[in-house]
Amino acid sequence: MNNFIYHNPVKIVFGKGSIKELSELIPKESKILMTYGGGSIKKNGVYEQVKSALKDFNVLEFGGIEPNPRYETLMKAVDICKNEKIDFLLSVGGGSVLDGTKFISAAAKYENGDPWDILSKDAEIKDAIPLGDVLTLSATGSEMNMWAVISRESTKEKLAFGHPLVYPKFSILDPETTFSLSEWQTANGIVDAFVHVLEQYMTYPVNALVQDRFAEALLKILIEEGPKAIKNPKDYDTRANIMWAATQALNGNIGVGVPQDWATHSIGHELTAFYGLDHARTLAIVLPGVWKHQKAAKEEKLKQYAKQVWNYEGSDSVDKAIEFTEQFFRSLGMKTKLKENGIGEEKFEEIANRFEIRNQKLGEHQNIGKKEVIEILKLCLE
Amino acid sequence: MNNFIYHNPVKIVFGKGSIKELSELIPKESKILMTYGGGSIKKNGVYEQVKSALKDFNVLEFGGIEPNPRYETLMKAVDICKNEKIDFLLSVGGGSVLDGTKFISAAAKYENGDPWDILSKDAEIKDAIPLGDVLTLSATGSEMNMWAVISRESTKEKLAFGHPLVYPKFSILDPETTFSLSEWQTANGIVDAFVHVLEQYMTYPVNALVQDRFAEALLKILIEEGPKAIKNPKDYDTRANIMWAATQALNGNIGVGVPQDWATHSIGHELTAFYGLDHARTLAIVLPGVWKHQKAAKEEKLKQYAKQVWNYEGSDSVDKAIEFTEQFFRSLGMKTKLKENGIGEEKFEEIANRFEIRNQKLGEHQNIGKKEVIEILKLCLE
Repeated sequence: MNNFIYHNPVKIVFGKGSIKELSELIPKESKILMTYGGGSIKKNGVYEQVKSALKDFNVLEFGGIEPNPRYETLMKAVDICKNEKIDFLLSVGGGSVLDGTKFISAAAKYENGDPWDILSKDAEIKDAIPLGDVLTLSATGSEMNMWAVISRESTKEKLAFGHPLVYPKFSILDPETTFSLSEWQTANGIVDAFVHVLEQYMTYPVNALVQDRFAEALLKILIEEGPKAIKNPKDYDTRANIMWAATQALNGNIGVGVPQDWATHSIGHELTAFYGLDHARTLAIVLPGVWKHQKAAKEEKLKQYAKQVWNYEGSDSVDKAIEFTEQFFRSLGMKTKLKENGIGEEKFEEIANRFEIRNQKLGEHQNIGKKEVIEILKLCLE
Repeated sequence: MNNFIYHNPVKIVFGKGSIKELSELIPKESKILMTYGGGSIKKNGVYEQVKSALKDFNVLEFGGIEPNPRYETLMKAVDICKNEKIDFLLSVGGGSVLDGTKFISAAAKYENGDPWDILSKDAEIKDAIPLGDVLTLSATGSEMNMWAVISRESTKEKLAFGHPLVYPKFSILDPETTFSLSEWQTANGIVDAFVHVLEQYMTYPVNALVQDRFAEALLKILIEEGPKAIKNPKDYDTRANIMWAATQALNGNIGVGVPQDWATHSIGHELTAFYGLDHARTLAIVLPGVWKHQKAAKEEKLKQYAKQVWNYEGSDSVDKAIEFTEQFFRSLGMKTKLKENGIGEEKFEEIANRFEIRNQKLGEHQNIGKKEVIEILKLCLE
């Protein structure tokens, strides 16, 4: 096991009816900016529950944060925070709204120039508006970590940042808020969480048994519960198990003391930036390509995964591991090939150039550069 | 899954060589009271490492905290804290030193009378001296929770308290500090951690898959790695896996949203108070008795445990689950019967009376009272 530091101060308030705890979780006298997305919270009753819980607070609203939250949109909220002297941000929605709110939190207190530098230049964050959230989609794990991914429309960039100051003070996870998710959204969430686990697991062994067994447990739970959630979207326990598994997938617990990959996410982000594909849909395409390309480097862990997660042992278990994973994605309604999404080789060079420009190498061995990204994308074609 | 709140702010610094991080973890200018036990840290190099890391701090020392730390001893440290205006406590040792230090932390700031009331009357804690620790024995999980168990010699009582103010600010977990543990101590630690998991698992099913699979993972790791640690006490990975598993066993993560038992611990505490048996040794005796007595109530989970942890399915899997567990304890050198420890029925009435006096019912159904405690103890005899 590698040395590590683990510190996660997020308070999780989990279960049905927990939105009413909001008034105890936000400091009294706070002036709140409530952020949300396209308005689904107004259809499923979450908006009413939040407003009711906060009836004694001064609450402003900022709706319209997109999936793949955009810098351009978020900067409007930053202006509101400054002009209105907002002292608490409440994200009500999925990971995109929450990631966007984390950026608003840091950008509103950033005094050294363009807040885009937080994303593009890793500019130092010294202060941030405290934030909390009501989660309505299990997927990104953002509710229990300090990370956020933001897109810039004008330059087609999609970049991540993280800082302890943007840990949510609390996250309210009520599985009932996910009952109204469509099959499409549910599948997205399951695949996103599944790949989060794999980015921290599918590397090389370092004999970290707790992390490995926990990761395998989360994968098996998502494999078991995913199809159930699609079949019975209002089954509480199924939604609860998926919600808690998705949070555990990216709260740091399975990622400490082990090597991590994240090549699939990095390449996937570019596919979203270039083609507007949903985040999870890019992962379902790229992951099998990365594994095929890195088969030798990941051999031991692919075999372990085949055995522990898919209960398969055999001389072809490396290939079977990839096959089973792709089949699982497809069983959830995902396309796993670029051509199925109408995407060909045309922009491979341009996409791969992004990594060269940023001088960015990918993977647990940091050996995936421009050339290898093109090779991987070719393996994702059909 | 039941509703829950999870919040654990402890910073874990894990790995070889991590004691040197101490100087960065304790606020500058702190006046530190370093607490420790019987002096083993002076033989295994830990004392020197700590003193070296803290060479620029003002450090006082308080040694001699016993296993089952005693109120009478700890109150001497409370006096030092008050007289010397200590503003940081550093526990260097195992769970007993750390539990004792948590009590010192709260008692030194307790202004409403006898600090024993914190334990006996659940008196309110309003302030505490901040504390951190260097852990040298994997067992209690105290390094990542807010709980402590304290004994009072004069009245033969052993009681627990917990408060968010006594969460360690940090815990340094260097597996190398456990290389010098004896077989006896190593076995104690493994059984303690193992039973911690079971107190949160062996109840009745609530379809909490993450908690169940994580708990089963920890049990399997302890079953695999325990004998290895006894055979090869200086194997780093083995010690590291046990250390991290023991922390995960009682940091709240597997216990949220599920019923909990703790009857074994409560009865075991009395055996320690009456007979001075090591904590873990009482657990190895009492757990099988509790399970035999509660076989019907725990039937579903006993079957699940037999299948998931021991890979056993059959019409006798409930009995086999108990048998395998007892065999595992015995394989680590534990005695699992009272009579093997020279204890008969003489004090069963007096022991069981303790629960009646405190009006305390035990178990996940809160249906174990005086009568049932005597029945359980009889099942532990031979």
